[in-house]
Amino acid sequence: MTAEIIDGKAFAARLRGEVAEQVAVLKRDHGITPGLAVVLVGEDPASQVYVRNKHKQTLEAGMESFEHRLPAETPEAELLDLVGRLNADPAVHGILVQLPLPDHIDAEKVIAAIDPDKDVDGFHVSNVGRLATGQAALVPCTPLGCLMLLRDRLGSLSGREAVVIGRSNIVGKPMAQLLLRDSATVTIAHSRTRDIEAVVRRAEIVIAAVGRPRMVTGDWLRPGATVIDVGINRIEDPEAGKTRLVGDCDFESCAAVAGAITPVPGGVGPMTIACLLANTLTATCRAAGLPAAEGLTA
Amino acid sequence: MTAEIIDGKAFAARLRGEVAEQVAVLKRDHGITPGLAVVLVGEDPASQVYVRNKHKQTLEAGMESFEHRLPAETPEAELLDLVGRLNADPAVHGILVQLPLPDHIDAEKVIAAIDPDKDVDGFHVSNVGRLATGQAALVPCTPLGCLMLLRDRLGSLSGREAVVIGRSNIVGKPMAQLLLRDSATVTIAHSRTRDIEAVVRRAEIVIAAVGRPRMVTGDWLRPGATVIDVGINRIEDPEAGKTRLVGDCDFESCAAVAGAITPVPGGVGPMTIACLLANTLTATCRAAGLPAAEGLTA
Repeated sequence: MTAEIIDGKAFAARLRGEVAEQVAVLKRDHGITPGLAVVLVGEDPASQVYVRNKHKQTLEAGMESFEHRLPAETPEAELLDLVGRLNADPAVHGILVQLPLPDHIDAEKVIAAIDPDKDVDGFHVSNVGRLATGQAALVPCTPLGCLMLLRDRLGSLSGREAVVIGRSNIVGKPMAQLLLRDSATVTIAHSRTRDIEAVVRRAEIVIAAVGRPRMVTGDWLRPGATVIDVGINRIEDPEAGKTRLVGDCDFESCAAVAGAITPVPGGVGPMTIACLLANTLTATCRAAGLPAAEGLTA
Repeated sequence: MTAEIIDGKAFAARLRGEVAEQVAVLKRDHGITPGLAVVLVGEDPASQVYVRNKHKQTLEAGMESFEHRLPAETPEAELLDLVGRLNADPAVHGILVQLPLPDHIDAEKVIAAIDPDKDVDGFHVSNVGRLATGQAALVPCTPLGCLMLLRDRLGSLSGREAVVIGRSNIVGKPMAQLLLRDSATVTIAHSRTRDIEAVVRRAEIVIAAVGRPRMVTGDWLRPGATVIDVGINRIEDPEAGKTRLVGDCDFESCAAVAGAITPVPGGVGPMTIACLLANTLTATCRAAGLPAAEGLTA
């Protein structure tokens, strides 16, 4: 094994520390406490874990956390009404509606109802459009975290050849925009890509975000490539007789070829909530007409 | 010379004919006449030519054309006020503010003021975001025209390797989104791309949109590639003692290697206004709750 392991857990802890420092400065100098509202509809177990972690880390960063837990049968109109009240609440700087939503609620409509300047998930079409046109946007948390890890390891990304595997609205497409903004040469590969191994093998930077366990193997990689594995897939482990988490990359074979790689768990995963806090801070600063903190935005 | 010449002029004429037919149907069946408002601020000679052509072709398609010519010194607030009135006018289905605007006017602010559902240029962040997330958008005219030419020549673009040279908000980036939507494997190359010749040589589809006269030469191309040349550059022609238009591709050498290529002029150029008419028709249909005409949208 030759690759350096990119420690996303440690990086995320440092990032949360920086956010907490900035929050303290905001309070001291401006009397402003950033507030994050998280809305959870229903009882999805994974969502409950996420929301609990977000709540805990929001408080640890010195921010206010507003939790709204609604029953699964909440009518869409009621959820939209809550979003409207959060939009109007000056103590709330960031709003996150935990996905997935129950089937009877149109997620696109709910996201569209969030004030784009409070949309700390970066999913509102206005933020997608701002990101794509180079305006100040709130950027989806997971690709923002990947970008931070890449910049930390590689410095400038300008001119580097990057391949993003996966074209989701949540990771693949915003990731490509961020890499392009940093002047990488960006290719988006996906399920219809022919000879995907050859396409990936060109890349100095590989972002795997497809949700297929261990799809990318070491023979797909250019030696020395930096590999960011966004996948979090739960698989059966017959030997241990239980399940475990693996990424979209086959860690063992990839680590033998890559120059650096994020592990799963402990790589990209912890960056997502840290970037949510960074986005909440950014939204707070912008709402107050203050410059966003260096290094915490794209 | 081996490449087939893609006749954008003839294609655009057919497209305008289809739009005119659909306009006639809309009038007959629904009593609706699509209306396009074009706003020109100042006396830029090139803009005056464009606006005159748009006006003429809008009328030829059976649509209403509303021209608003304002003096160069028009205050921004007055322009924003006009946009507001056009947004509210039910006879106006499409609004186009001709760019560039005079320096004292913030173009971003003006575009943001246009109702996204009337934004037939497709430049509003909401349309950029809708395009990127797969929602029904109004798509910028030039890349939409390129997409139509590609689909016409190649049929399905799924799995094809495409390289877009240039990352402008008007052409390169929306072009990449459109190709991705059609499931091509898309690379965006630009001024910082290393060994750009090698990157372009991978592609079955090359879109050149950089604005550098004859930058792409035949030795950059994979034999048989389909080349769409978006560049319109005016250069001195010392032999003829006057200026002439050339593309971003060196036509002679590229045509010797490509499978098909658009000429300049007569390739992509005529598609832009035809797609503006198509977008105006699409906006009209959507505003009336009718399905947009097949083949006229992305």
